[in-house]
Amino acid sequence: MADAENIWLDVQKIREKAPLVHNITNYVVMNTTANALLAIGASPVMAHAIQEVEEMVRIAHTVGGALVINIGTLSEKWIDAMSLAMQTAKEQKVPIVFDPVGAGATNLRTQTCVHLLAETNPEIIRGNASEIMALLDSDVQTKGVDSSASPETAIYSAKALASFYRCVVCVSGVRDVITDSHVVMTTRNGHPLMSRVTGLGCTASALIGAFVAVNPDPLLAATHAMAVMGIAGELAAEQAQGPGTLQLYFYDVLYNLDKQQIEKRLR
Amino acid sequence: MADAENIWLDVQKIREKAPLVHNITNYVVMNTTANALLAIGASPVMAHAIQEVEEMVRIAHTVGGALVINIGTLSEKWIDAMSLAMQTAKEQKVPIVFDPVGAGATNLRTQTCVHLLAETNPEIIRGNASEIMALLDSDVQTKGVDSSASPETAIYSAKALASFYRCVVCVSGVRDVITDSHVVMTTRNGHPLMSRVTGLGCTASALIGAFVAVNPDPLLAATHAMAVMGIAGELAAEQAQGPGTLQLYFYDVLYNLDKQQIEKRLR
Amino acid sequence: MADAENIWLDVQKIREKAPLVHNITNYVVMNTTANALLAIGASPVMAHAIQEVEEMVRIAHTVGGALVINIGTLSEKWIDAMSLAMQTAKEQKVPIVFDPVGAGATNLRTQTCVHLLAETNPEIIRGNASEIMALLDSDVQTKGVDSSASPETAIYSAKALASFYRCVVCVSGVRDVITDSHVVMTTRNGHPLMSRVTGLGCTASALIGAFVAVNPDPLLAATHAMAVMGIAGELAAEQAQGPGTLQLYFYDVLYNLDKQQIEKRLR
Repeated sequence: MADAENIWLDVQKIREKAPLVHNITNYVVMNTTANALLAIGASPVMAHAIQEVEEMVRIAHTVGGALVINIGTLSEKWIDAMSLAMQTAKEQKVPIVFDPVGAGATNLRTQTCVHLLAETNPEIIRGNASEIMALLDSDVQTKGVDSSASPETAIYSAKALASFYRCVVCVSGVRDVITDSHVVMTTRNGHPLMSRVTGLGCTASALIGAFVAVNPDPLLAATHAMAVMGIAGELAAEQAQGPGTLQLYFYDVLYNLDKQQIEKRLR
Repeated sequence: MADAENIWLDVQKIREKAPLVHNITNYVVMNTTANALLAIGASPVMAHAIQEVEEMVRIAHTVGGALVINIGTLSEKWIDAMSLAMQTAKEQKVPIVFDPVGAGATNLRTQTCVHLLAETNPEIIRGNASEIMALLDSDVQTKGVDSSASPETAIYSAKALASFYRCVVCVSGVRDVITDSHVVMTTRNGHPLMSRVTGLGCTASALIGAFVAVNPDPLLAATHAMAVMGIAGELAAEQAQGPGTLQLYFYDVLYNLDKQQIEKRLR
Repeated sequence: MADAENIWLDVQKIREKAPLVHNITNYVVMNTTANALLAIGASPVMAHAIQEVEEMVRIAHTVGGALVINIGTLSEKWIDAMSLAMQTAKEQKVPIVFDPVGAGATNLRTQTCVHLLAETNPEIIRGNASEIMALLDSDVQTKGVDSSASPETAIYSAKALASFYRCVVCVSGVRDVITDSHVVMTTRNGHPLMSRVTGLGCTASALIGAFVAVNPDPLLAATHAMAVMGIAGELAAEQAQGPGTLQLYFYDVLYNLDKQQIEKRLR
């Protein structure tokens, strides 16, 4: 169970330090994740050319930041850049968040994840239940990029994956499960309408990047980020008439989020 | 003239079955078409790497779905992936929707369309009048990606194109014309403000993908999708102050669309 | 100091002529800049394949338009296409707006700018203070893509850069500074919340493209565009609850902008 006080401390630190979150992410969500990061108070940058990712990661090291890798719209050159960026981040002690979008759907996605994770273990892997299960067992077949397994059935996989890569694994769903293989944290905030907005999972991974840039404990950072995602989603859904307005209010809520809202909502 | 009852049956089927709509589309609209597909109840996926499009199309075959090809921001590798995805879809009997964005504006766009369509005839081609005319006669020059011909002048081209490729052709405009070369259907819903939101034509093509995934008759599927586009646009425009709010309300309306709205609005 | 009457004349010309603004821009902002251009009344097109940029620039020449180059998410093939598009625009007398996003952050960005600007001097360069300073002195290091220098400290750099490339340089910030190295114009409109929406700087560059397509004086065109950006941002911020709603209202305001609003707000 996350603690409202500590979540709020992290939000304040993000607003104060504006950590640089370097994203190598998919075309679908570049705009929306940048907006979510700006709304919470972080400083997003998107850079994917192999000629510049090393340098950009070094800036994240210098000014304080994180690297977020998201494989949502892969192609060959991007994989090489992701590999180099992750290795540089590891050397520079810049925390890495890895989002295996669509792992299990195609061999390219599953194998790219396996290859990148074998080279460099990230601080945090965040995915839906199907994706997390696919990373452990490549026989799991998923339907596109939406999850077809419940978070509950994936807890075993999450703990096994966390143990295998010695990292934190976050399985998002109706109940979010976050584990370092030993401790299991859960957050229960959120709203069903959030699944009708594209890329809110990717946004969660990007926000985890902002939190882990200011909180050295990846388990807490991921848990705090997921709680903020869910709380902001609930608050936005209360005002929204549908998924279109939900997305916009979501940014407004992130920007205006205060301690009382977190205390009152956290489940 | 479309029938409200049957449009509504298709909407219900999309919400129930959540068909997988595999898009190989342009950078400008990836986010907005994914959101429109989620709002109507479909399951969008974007995948363009040549290493994975075949597999993704096979998933669309297995779970039920469609392939939407949109040439809005072309480059070489994407053309190869489009070609392979279309051929796989044909083999797997996954219906194909083809959007020739900007055909007639540059040789690359016109020739890519001619090349892809010669290899694989899709179930449905949807474009504005200029684009449809350019596919028949490459001497037609268009201004960028916006149409400079009326749908009326393009009916002849639409029928000829439908006959040539043995497919359904949908010409969108103030009046939408949908034809299989024999029967001509029209829908007259919509709002002028829709032309001030980027990519609503691309959204129409994506929605046609969702409809043709649940309705085996491409002529009806395209007609129903265009009616829903227009009706949702009208309802959104009534609430909107301009193109920004229109786009957001458009998703909300798609998500909340009911039978009465279709019956009342359909023209 | 810009003049409300002349700003309004330009807005009317954009709405009447719908100039074609050809953008080779970054993935993050393709959708949002297209929407801003449509909202103000221009006709945006995105095309980056080396096989078609020359042709697209020629269309901009024929129908009236501008070329906007934005290096926000670079990779090799895009640089070649930018180079060819800029050279074609110069030959065809299509005005060029250049946005050096993140110059100073990585060598790739700084060197690409230096290389492209050495080949072809644009009519207008627009950036934040850090970017403009980095173009003059590659030892200036910036943090990601957000500015870390005040516009005031960059005036000297702006004038020097304008003199070096014989073009207009626009430094955006709390106070926007626009200079051809001789005359310095300023606009003081805008709202702090604008910096929490991704890509509004890129939107400014795109709008400058629309203005310079209808106003042959690049100094005035850039000044008028920056005034309209700032005024629209203020009006949107008054209605907005946060950065999410600000972005949407911004398009609505651009679409509905009238002479009285410009006269009343212009500072």
